[in-house]
Amino acid sequence: MIEYANASPEVRAVYDDIRATRKTDYINNFWKALANDPATLRRTWEGIKQVMAPGALDPLTKEFIYMAVSITNQCQYCIGSHTAAARNKGMTDEMFAEFMAVVGMANQTNNLASGYRVELDEQFR
Amino acid sequence: MIEYANASPEVRAVYDDIRATRKTDYINNFWKALANDPATLRRTWEGIKQVMAPGALDPLTKEFIYMAVSITNQCQYCIGSHTAAARNKGMTDEMFAEFMAVVGMANQTNNLASGYRVELDEQFR
Amino acid sequence: MIEYANASPEVRAVYDDIRATRKTDYINNFWKALANDPATLRRTWEGIKQVMAPGALDPLTKEFIYMAVSITNQCQYCIGSHTAAARNKGMTDEMFAEFMAVVGMANQTNNLASGYRVELDEQFR
Amino acid sequence: MIEYANASPEVRAVYDDIRATRKTDYINNFWKALANDPATLRRTWEGIKQVMAPGALDPLTKEFIYMAVSITNQCQYCIGSHTAAARNKGMTDEMFAEFMAVVGMANQTNNLASGYRVELDEQFR
Amino acid sequence: MIEYANASPEVRAVYDDIRATRKTDYINNFWKALANDPATLRRTWEGIKQVMAPGALDPLTKEFIYMAVSITNQCQYCIGSHTAAARNKGMTDEMFAEFMAVVGMANQTNNLASGYRVELDEQFR
Amino acid sequence: MIEYANASPEVRAVYDDIRATRKTDYINNFWKALANDPATLRRTWEGIKQVMAPGALDPLTKEFIYMAVSITNQCQYCIGSHTAAARNKGMTDEMFAEFMAVVGMANQTNNLASGYRVELDEQFR
Repeated sequence: MIEYANASPEVRAVYDDIRATRKTDYINNFWKALANDPATLRRTWEGIKQVMAPGALDPLTKEFIYMAVSITNQCQYCIGSHTAAARNKGMTDEMFAEFMAVVGMANQTNNLASGYRVELDEQFR
Repeated sequence: MIEYANASPEVRAVYDDIRATRKTDYINNFWKALANDPATLRRTWEGIKQVMAPGALDPLTKEFIYMAVSITNQCQYCIGSHTAAARNKGMTDEMFAEFMAVVGMANQTNNLASGYRVELDEQFR
Repeated sequence: MIEYANASPEVRAVYDDIRATRKTDYINNFWKALANDPATLRRTWEGIKQVMAPGALDPLTKEFIYMAVSITNQCQYCIGSHTAAARNKGMTDEMFAEFMAVVGMANQTNNLASGYRVELDEQFR
Repeated sequence: MIEYANASPEVRAVYDDIRATRKTDYINNFWKALANDPATLRRTWEGIKQVMAPGALDPLTKEFIYMAVSITNQCQYCIGSHTAAARNKGMTDEMFAEFMAVVGMANQTNNLASGYRVELDEQFR
Repeated sequence: MIEYANASPEVRAVYDDIRATRKTDYINNFWKALANDPATLRRTWEGIKQVMAPGALDPLTKEFIYMAVSITNQCQYCIGSHTAAARNKGMTDEMFAEFMAVVGMANQTNNLASGYRVELDEQFR
Repeated sequence: MIEYANASPEVRAVYDDIRATRKTDYINNFWKALANDPATLRRTWEGIKQVMAPGALDPLTKEFIYMAVSITNQCQYCIGSHTAAARNKGMTDEMFAEFMAVVGMANQTNNLASGYRVELDEQFR
């Protein structure tokens, strides 16, 4: 993991932008690991910054989408970090409970649909 | 697939509740396939009805969560049917574009985190 | 796809063994595709033959395990071919319904466990 | 995690039913985590109880199906807890070895089928 | 799908760069679909262009990595398009056969490792 | 885990072959776990030995394919052990960085293709 003190100017520029955008001094382990490849660090951060910014969807909705993907992929790191991010953006216990119930149900019906080999309805094509 | 006309009273009761709850006469192929097992039909519908109802999260946000799971699982049926459901609940082209951008980015970083074997930050535990 | 008529002696030897073992003349498309790589055809068939033979688990139980993996992986070919194989080995509609109910429930709780980040109980380690 | 001593009457009712059904005082961490959302706790427990009960398939076969899904999803918690459950229901070392051999082979051939883009045989549709 | 003739200047600029970089007039359906969201089209194309360029790994090795991911995810579109791309970059039948054998074996041992709950060797941490 | 000292002659024969083939005394935990089922130990080792041997693809390319599968499956053990194996076979930091960038991008576009429901181009069929 590359700490700020040992980072190249190229990596520091990304770290500085993360800090400014997120209004916190803390740099996640994820970015410190990616810093071993400055091109991927920059490309990934630029992508995340663009994609997670408020737009037609609000930032908390975007975190729920991120969490749903991470849980389905069983990615421990991403589950941990994005659950924390969602809490920061206002996720309550009640929201989390409803979110998890939907994630569980979706994974169940995805497999019911595949196992029963259901054909897509004409009108949904 | 079990059509309403050929359905047992037990299955019809579920179909009637789907129609009343969704305010439409249309029954998705998914339910017509599950109707081969009335117990699972009922349990799954009761679960979906409870879980997708408005609560701390609004119905469209719940559809986004459902879609994110379905895409990550590569479930063709569920992608098709829940994209249609999200459109019904107000998803615009712009929302869909942002949604997809988040799903793509999350799948990318899930794998970057795992491949780089990033340890979860102390504060996210 | 390599048909018997056009197959090399090496491939024919595997096809003959498939026919003898399964007591049918039919060779699945899967084997006809693998026949493009005779080494993998042979290794895979030998593995399947060894692994799916009756032992401490009966052949139908083994098909259920195979189907559960295939559905979770959303592999259309394998879902189709192993559902047919299970029917051949005695799977009834009632068994299939119970099987699917377990597969759906397992996928749901897998994600509930991960999303809630449940730690494994001491006694299950 | 919600312990029995701190649980609401609603949660206690589910815990009591788990204990009575399973004939053990032990409540898994999974249920203690889900207890943060009593509606999902109840719905999930009722589903599991219904689905895992003996029927056309015996309880041990159902555990094998559950384990196959959990391993394919790489869900550490579920692998641990359902392997323990299968042992409780009579799984021997020999059964486990055969089970694992099938799970491994199924995951291999799922990917061979997809990578070779094998079309489903007419007769399996 | 957005065809060149109907594309905005922003989308055309990306299409022109795809054509110039790949030395072909053909634009894949993938890009024509992404063109509904010009920001994601541009970001994704810029990423692909950067990542798939020759570097420490040659372009064909990168296609094998791409295909391995796509097969494991059971993504039909990506399996089809990247297998074609690999053929273009010199993949022979023999290479494809060896590639598939590794993909199959890796998926098998991934599940054996998880099901047997093997702990990572000290020296691999 | 079965250590060499406690292994049956059948298991020792496989361990001896692993040592001779890999030119090291070290036996991975993976093999020590599989040794609980000598038939699967032998079949898996014979498969790995055949499939990972130099051929039309060199051994390092094969490790990249193995790693790509393991990361996509989120298999912690396999990520750890095959990253170590790739290092042994000459993977540099620069190669690893490029490899990871491709894996991340492939996972992203797999999901973009599925979510946008892109149809496979006629010419890639």
